[in-house]
Amino acid sequence: MFFNPLESLLAHINSPQDLKKLGKEQLPFLAQELRDFIIKIVAAKEGHLGASLGVVELTIALHYVFNTPEDKLIWDVGHQAYGHKILTGRKEIFDTNRQLGGISGFPKRSESEFDDFGTGHSSTAISAILGMAMASQLQNKLEKQHIAVVGDASIASGMAFEGLNHLGVTDTNVLIVLNDNAIGIDPSIGAFKKYLTNVKKGTAKDENLFECLNLNYSGPIDGHDLDLLVTQLERLKSIKGPRLLHIITTKGKGLKKAEENQVVYHAPGKFDASTGERLKNTQQDQPPKYQDVFGHTLVELAEQNENIVGITPAMPTGSSMKFMMEAIPERAFDVGIAEQHAVTLAAGMATEGLVPFCNIYSTFLQRAYDQIIHDVALQNIPVIFCLDRAGLVGQDGPTHHGVFDMAYLRCIPNMTIFAPLNEKELRNIMFTVQRSLSGPIAIRYPRGRGVTMDSKTPFEAIPIGKAQCLRSGSKLAVLSIGHIGNSVIQILEDLDSDGIVGHYNMRFVKPLDSELLLSIFEQYDSVITVEDGCQTGGFGSAVLEFASANGIQKSITIFGVPDRFIEHGTMMETHELAGIDINSLREKIKSAL
Amino acid sequence: MFFNPLESLLAHINSPQDLKKLGKEQLPFLAQELRDFIIKIVAAKEGHLGASLGVVELTIALHYVFNTPEDKLIWDVGHQAYGHKILTGRKEIFDTNRQLGGISGFPKRSESEFDDFGTGHSSTAISAILGMAMASQLQNKLEKQHIAVVGDASIASGMAFEGLNHLGVTDTNVLIVLNDNAIGIDPSIGAFKKYLTNVKKGTAKDENLFECLNLNYSGPIDGHDLDLLVTQLERLKSIKGPRLLHIITTKGKGLKKAEENQVVYHAPGKFDASTGERLKNTQQDQPPKYQDVFGHTLVELAEQNENIVGITPAMPTGSSMKFMMEAIPERAFDVGIAEQHAVTLAAGMATEGLVPFCNIYSTFLQRAYDQIIHDVALQNIPVIFCLDRAGLVGQDGPTHHGVFDMAYLRCIPNMTIFAPLNEKELRNIMFTVQRSLSGPIAIRYPRGRGVTMDSKTPFEAIPIGKAQCLRSGSKLAVLSIGHIGNSVIQILEDLDSDGIVGHYNMRFVKPLDSELLLSIFEQYDSVITVEDGCQTGGFGSAVLEFASANGIQKSITIFGVPDRFIEHGTMMETHELAGIDINSLREKIKSAL
Repeated sequence: MFFNPLESLLAHINSPQDLKKLGKEQLPFLAQELRDFIIKIVAAKEGHLGASLGVVELTIALHYVFNTPEDKLIWDVGHQAYGHKILTGRKEIFDTNRQLGGISGFPKRSESEFDDFGTGHSSTAISAILGMAMASQLQNKLEKQHIAVVGDASIASGMAFEGLNHLGVTDTNVLIVLNDNAIGIDPSIGAFKKYLTNVKKGTAKDENLFECLNLNYSGPIDGHDLDLLVTQLERLKSIKGPRLLHIITTKGKGLKKAEENQVVYHAPGKFDASTGERLKNTQQDQPPKYQDVFGHTLVELAEQNENIVGITPAMPTGSSMKFMMEAIPERAFDVGIAEQHAVTLAAGMATEGLVPFCNIYSTFLQRAYDQIIHDVALQNIPVIFCLDRAGLVGQDGPTHHGVFDMAYLRCIPNMTIFAPLNEKELRNIMFTVQRSLSGPIAIRYPRGRGVTMDSKTPFEAIPIGKAQCLRSGSKLAVLSIGHIGNSVIQILEDLDSDGIVGHYNMRFVKPLDSELLLSIFEQYDSVITVEDGCQTGGFGSAVLEFASANGIQKSITIFGVPDRFIEHGTMMETHELAGIDINSLREKIKSAL
Repeated sequence: MFFNPLESLLAHINSPQDLKKLGKEQLPFLAQELRDFIIKIVAAKEGHLGASLGVVELTIALHYVFNTPEDKLIWDVGHQAYGHKILTGRKEIFDTNRQLGGISGFPKRSESEFDDFGTGHSSTAISAILGMAMASQLQNKLEKQHIAVVGDASIASGMAFEGLNHLGVTDTNVLIVLNDNAIGIDPSIGAFKKYLTNVKKGTAKDENLFECLNLNYSGPIDGHDLDLLVTQLERLKSIKGPRLLHIITTKGKGLKKAEENQVVYHAPGKFDASTGERLKNTQQDQPPKYQDVFGHTLVELAEQNENIVGITPAMPTGSSMKFMMEAIPERAFDVGIAEQHAVTLAAGMATEGLVPFCNIYSTFLQRAYDQIIHDVALQNIPVIFCLDRAGLVGQDGPTHHGVFDMAYLRCIPNMTIFAPLNEKELRNIMFTVQRSLSGPIAIRYPRGRGVTMDSKTPFEAIPIGKAQCLRSGSKLAVLSIGHIGNSVIQILEDLDSDGIVGHYNMRFVKPLDSELLLSIFEQYDSVITVEDGCQTGGFGSAVLEFASANGIQKSITIFGVPDRFIEHGTMMETHELAGIDINSLREKIKSAL
């Protein structure tokens, strides 16, 4: 292709085939354009920024050298993949990123033949790519290459290690590119990270951890040097068997502010594309985020109770555990992307009398399910799980919705499950359980803002297993769990249904308030249960089971997330997609009357 | 203590305090006695043998050197702990091991102050001991020691790696004893195992994987040399910070047959204590085990369908995957104790057109819950999960019961869940899904024998989502799922309830057979659901949800495992403990009439 420095290269690239027409010397110019393109769109439309800026050169080099989509390519974690999406036919729709009906913020199999595996959660790529490579081997496709780009925060997770452990004893055509930028969303932690740092500084001994695991190791090399990347990838392409290339990159590369403040610019919201300056949020006088209420309340309680410790698996900023890490660093721990470890570590601490608040996003607690059952609940150890981002989460979409927690936790004996109606209840349950707790509890609350401006009121204890009557009625009882109860409050105020529709803030999914439920079933003709979790096996099912066990045959309707995966969109749009928005709820209540 | 070679040392030891009164030179004699004692009891009473024989010397040395129970000690996995139990006050009741009301086959917190953490599942110890050690640090107990004995099969699991990764950046008083015997239940696999073998042979380079992770490494040393063990542990006791001692042991040490056949003598059943000869099982002409039906059917199908592959995480013998590993080794894979990896590996394979049968015990699938949701179901990838040992499992007890699977899988969109009534249905569903499958399926079946002598009949396809009427009735419909349906058959034959009680073999927990259910609810006054899984959120709840969604208000009774952990005992005893034995079921059906 003729190289004209005044002409855009990116404009002509709609597939890796187009990319391959460029001369190697043109690639750095394309990198600049691709970087500018990502910055321009993300500045206006929001999304993940830093990770994709860090792999602009790698993205170009991979598609330049390898034969995608015939060769397999997985991005772990998925928010590195913006450049990949732009170069593989999605440039024109990239401005729909993370919007309703638009492209996903993560690789998605149903979106493109170039997205070989969905990677919303991290550390899955080595297992998936090895499966593909073993398939190729069985199918006698011996030239086919299989590449996984894995961040250093992802590779330190147990599942990634399991994949490496297997990979090392195969002779599959797998290339792991270790993208080492020393940070996930927050800075990477752990002995593995320390080791990688020693390798970079040249202070590691002759020992090589990856060679111990029988992998052909190359690096570390500068991941922003396109010439070097292409050369190395060409060389590695000609070698068979499992290989690992260690590249060093800078998260946020090319935007000064993003390089300087990598945590904030992981997903900075709207910003000025030229300066990087973040646009001020003009909304004021809004209720606080549940996350901040959690974070500040934890510090407040921990200052009084020296047994309290905080644990987060790699989400100090997102969960607001950072407040305790700043205020009382000796008692607040980021353990990295290691949910299994986080849960059992908390169990170990609790056996010795500490009071662990283990904060894990609802969707990520799925990764520590056995640890909750086997290490915590079976031994009835009092660990306090705070499940952030429960319910639908908006733009991150189906990989991140926290809709299964009530169903998967409810079947575990000894578990208590609580969902606060508002920030005050979150504060009060945290206060209650740190004083005395006989077994494990899960406290689930949504992403985003609460409903009260004055949530920081004096603590009050919440009686375990007791619900709250918010409005009395006679005909229809609405039983809500958690934050979605605020929609019920608003609807019933509008409906002016006094004396007809009752509303009960159930607070506990488990144990249910049996006494109150018996009186409700006696008093009312019919019941609607309302939750922001899955209808299958969730809070509504608990009420059905209660009725069945007590020989009650009345009309019970379950309102919740239907049995399908919900796509991405704004918070409000995802609620509409799931049919659990306030209008749908209003119709449901009206039709029941 | 005066040493008389004719007198039993073990007879005088009821606690580690007694042990400490012995001279170091007496310890090898005690080791011999302890070994003989374990052999004698296990020969008569059954249980795990090889693992505990391998750590006789280590067990003595640890309790001799350290100050248990003040110092913390965790055994991972727990079936190494027989010697530990005998030396810590449970010698007199050791013959009740794994029996109803007797001691557990695993460490159990509620059983003894010396059992610091329950470890039925593997690879949890490093996280738990680190939690305890961090607690000691915060509590200023700086002399306290924290020890975890971890088998080499356990340490290769992802969760253990997460623990090591964190441990390496702490300055806690943790000692990991890596008990390297190159075998779990089946031989260890993976790059880590290969590395350990190189260390033993002296063929590893200067590199040390554990030092890469910032641990103070010692070894490898002979784990049967008591003098050396005591010396090394004394030395390590005086050092602070995280340490790892690598010891080499022989599983089954001291019983020739057990050393020679480590897989069989992991848990050999009854045997002759002097010769090691296993006692012949006198029962004949019994139906085959579901495990064997699975294993042989898989080979039969794989011989016809070259896309079929088999995957097991460290359970080739227990699951009978070994049959395929022997017959078609290039398509059957033991991936070690790595359930997360196993599931996502299978997903990767399936994307490339293979047909993976991923066999995981129900209880262990809990360890790969997120992988099922995020990597398989969300992408609707056709992986066939075979959940062995679903339901209650008998002597292994609450850590191993597979009672939660229907509840935790049912809430996942795109999942199909099937439970065969008998071995023929297991064969037929395996036949059906390997031919065509549009998404993931879980096939759950129990530990132990089926019900038919002639199960190997020609394959017949099973219609997905369709149930089967076994007996028509008018008043009461019994809806059963899986093997427990055979109890219903027997009960109804005895009751002679023709024309009154109907019986439906539901086959699918998901999707339910809507058409049939509607007609059942129309036809019958009341319904009983019967399952061997948890009542909370399981199959019965699915039927309640169906009724609720269809506006049906009839009497529905759920029969299943109640919401508590069920202790160990024989299979029959655990069913009685849970109230799901045939007599309880008969009473339930009678009382509903």
